[in-house]
Amino acid sequence: MGTIGNSQPGDPAAGNGILSRRVFLEGAFGAGAAGAGVSGALAEPLPVQPWMKAPGAGFAPYGQPSRFEDKVVRAIPAPPNPATQGIGAARTPLHLLDGMITPSGLHFERSHSGIPDIDPAAHRLVIHGLVKRPLVFTIETLSRYPMHSRIAFIECAGNSQALNAPQAQPLGIAAIHGLIGCQEWTGVRLATLLDEAGVEPSARWLIAEGADSAAMSRSIPLAKAMDDALVCLYQNGERIRPSNGYPVRLLLPGFEGNMNVKWLRRIKLVTEPAMTKDETSKYTLLRQDGKAWQFVFAMEVKSVITRPSPGMTLKGAGFYEISGLAWSGNGSIRQVDVSADGGQSWAPAALQGPILPKAPVRFRAPWQWNGGPAVLQSRATDDAGMVQPTRAQFAAERGLRGVYHYNAIASWRIDDQGEATNAYA
Amino acid sequence: MGTIGNSQPGDPAAGNGILSRRVFLEGAFGAGAAGAGVSGALAEPLPVQPWMKAPGAGFAPYGQPSRFEDKVVRAIPAPPNPATQGIGAARTPLHLLDGMITPSGLHFERSHSGIPDIDPAAHRLVIHGLVKRPLVFTIETLSRYPMHSRIAFIECAGNSQALNAPQAQPLGIAAIHGLIGCQEWTGVRLATLLDEAGVEPSARWLIAEGADSAAMSRSIPLAKAMDDALVCLYQNGERIRPSNGYPVRLLLPGFEGNMNVKWLRRIKLVTEPAMTKDETSKYTLLRQDGKAWQFVFAMEVKSVITRPSPGMTLKGAGFYEISGLAWSGNGSIRQVDVSADGGQSWAPAALQGPILPKAPVRFRAPWQWNGGPAVLQSRATDDAGMVQPTRAQFAAERGLRGVYHYNAIASWRIDDQGEATNAYA
Repeated sequence: MGTIGNSQPGDPAAGNGILSRRVFLEGAFGAGAAGAGVSGALAEPLPVQPWMKAPGAGFAPYGQPSRFEDKVVRAIPAPPNPATQGIGAARTPLHLLDGMITPSGLHFERSHSGIPDIDPAAHRLVIHGLVKRPLVFTIETLSRYPMHSRIAFIECAGNSQALNAPQAQPLGIAAIHGLIGCQEWTGVRLATLLDEAGVEPSARWLIAEGADSAAMSRSIPLAKAMDDALVCLYQNGERIRPSNGYPVRLLLPGFEGNMNVKWLRRIKLVTEPAMTKDETSKYTLLRQDGKAWQFVFAMEVKSVITRPSPGMTLKGAGFYEISGLAWSGNGSIRQVDVSADGGQSWAPAALQGPILPKAPVRFRAPWQWNGGPAVLQSRATDDAGMVQPTRAQFAAERGLRGVYHYNAIASWRIDDQGEATNAYA
Repeated sequence: MGTIGNSQPGDPAAGNGILSRRVFLEGAFGAGAAGAGVSGALAEPLPVQPWMKAPGAGFAPYGQPSRFEDKVVRAIPAPPNPATQGIGAARTPLHLLDGMITPSGLHFERSHSGIPDIDPAAHRLVIHGLVKRPLVFTIETLSRYPMHSRIAFIECAGNSQALNAPQAQPLGIAAIHGLIGCQEWTGVRLATLLDEAGVEPSARWLIAEGADSAAMSRSIPLAKAMDDALVCLYQNGERIRPSNGYPVRLLLPGFEGNMNVKWLRRIKLVTEPAMTKDETSKYTLLRQDGKAWQFVFAMEVKSVITRPSPGMTLKGAGFYEISGLAWSGNGSIRQVDVSADGGQSWAPAALQGPILPKAPVRFRAPWQWNGGPAVLQSRATDDAGMVQPTRAQFAAERGLRGVYHYNAIASWRIDDQGEATNAYA
């Protein structure tokens, strides 16, 4: 196998080997790289492998990944207490994935008291409180309502919190950034159900409660509920997975994951937020001055390079695609810039359509690695004009005690052996 | 539980209860249906179920559907010969799904000699024939190239062939229409690889060959290969499933499924099509006059109502959403009309965005069932102006001996017990 180290498939667009995204225009990459690809010359006939010599396996009712992909799994930290195995999170291995959609089996999960084993025939959703007609829904009756589908991300408010540490920790992308996923969600507009219940004029908030044994509860502004909230029954085409809220969960597009209450059993219309455990003792942002922000709902504009990233070793100088995800809870991604010199120079990445509001966008940038040290960064801008801050800007504005809603530019350092590590730069 | 049989949540838009899609505008459905929903009034406190009384399950490395969804599986007909269990198809249960994306575990599969168990480290893809530089790729080297993602359908050319039968058969939607699926596919543009190999001016076609024991092979026009063909490594974010071509398959957006060669091992550039088994003895369209069409590539504009459909019984007069999928191998869906009176009157359905070329669109139409007989139909129009024909038009133009590329309007008959059956109307 050769390398493409000796040839420039496009124009330089920023320092340390970032090429113009124009090389992705059809044909331009291949033409530019001709004769210098990472492919090898065909020297001998293709061997006929054993799997071509006998009929293959029969059909399976429900398919699974190849046995050769058994390392592609969620990262599950050991529980601090063996009795609380379902408290914590399982994280998406972003470095092993591509595209915008997260496979349902690898979507991150964050649970506060494990995954309940809910019988959908016995499950009920109630809407009560400040409504004219308190209502109870079975899964079957919910299924009768008009449905709506949308592709949207859910990000845990605590995602990337490892980057609050004073020194960069030797962690991979799943451990740092793996609490984000994207699915096509389908359900009933919460507004439809609230309109049927008849919201009293005095109602301003609602409390959403889950049917896990923590009865995880959050207060949600009525305006969001009437805007784009969905009572979801399906993810990626099929019924929601247990770890994502089976048989019914709330989707609040763009809002912190914790508010997208799983195993939804109760919505109560109220005048004031309920000050639940998970909006007082947790999911608040502690500032440097010791005060805290509460009810910070939307996840801010953010991006992360998924490849290259720690655990992947570059195999010699030459062409690599820098690829990652960008998202904003405030709207659509307008631009992503990438840098290979720690933010000294930037070039725009190519954005993979469709670009949808409150959905991740896959970005791609061509990079000609010269074999020397590099620091890879990405910086997203959304259509509200918000730009991802540097870590220094983030620290100056918010401090590093907040735990939640960390969205600063992240860095991967590449050493001259091609090893990628988490870095502050 | 009540019904909404006594109330019109919107204006009539076509005969036999089809309402205006305007009822889906935010709030309009709920407001119109207020007090008459399929929900029940809240009469007693919610019971605390067993799953709220103890911590739930811990985290799984790779998630699965709920055990209560174990009937949501692909339909696998008994093989005609037990020795050939991997020859045939497993079909997507479209009636149990919603949205546009097919869950990867339920994507249809059509195999000609079973599913090979391919070791990706040993697999090779070769590009040879009329090229300046014959090339060999490993999965690892393919992974180095610039990637491209797109959401696209794949439909087997033989999908819906049961509707060629003279009498309507008592079959469900999976058995009739279940050979269609949609994924987000990610891979390398075939044009990139061909440019690197250097296509000779005399090349006009290429032969794509799979690494199954049938060495399934098809001839593909070079123009398509240079246009939007992808050499895919990922589906719905993760590596391609074995039943869909692991570790590498071809995607020819919009072209009949058979040409999207799975387990891709060889691409040979040639001057003429190879007249392989699967483009001569199969995958040709026999006309009424005994001649056959060969090389009919793009799947024509089509739609199918997934809900209601056979196997689902309507539970009393009242509101139901008619929902389904529409797609075209020639472009994007522009409009879908629905009828509840067997095509006597039509109203436009709401289309769920994003509307993407060569991707399915979920359509939805509100229907107030009066409890009497109905015949539900959908009719898609694409942005090339092609309109799905009636069965009579299709039969007059093509005859009913063609087996492949059946795209006529399909009908579900609803009887006064709410039972849905396949019908010709």
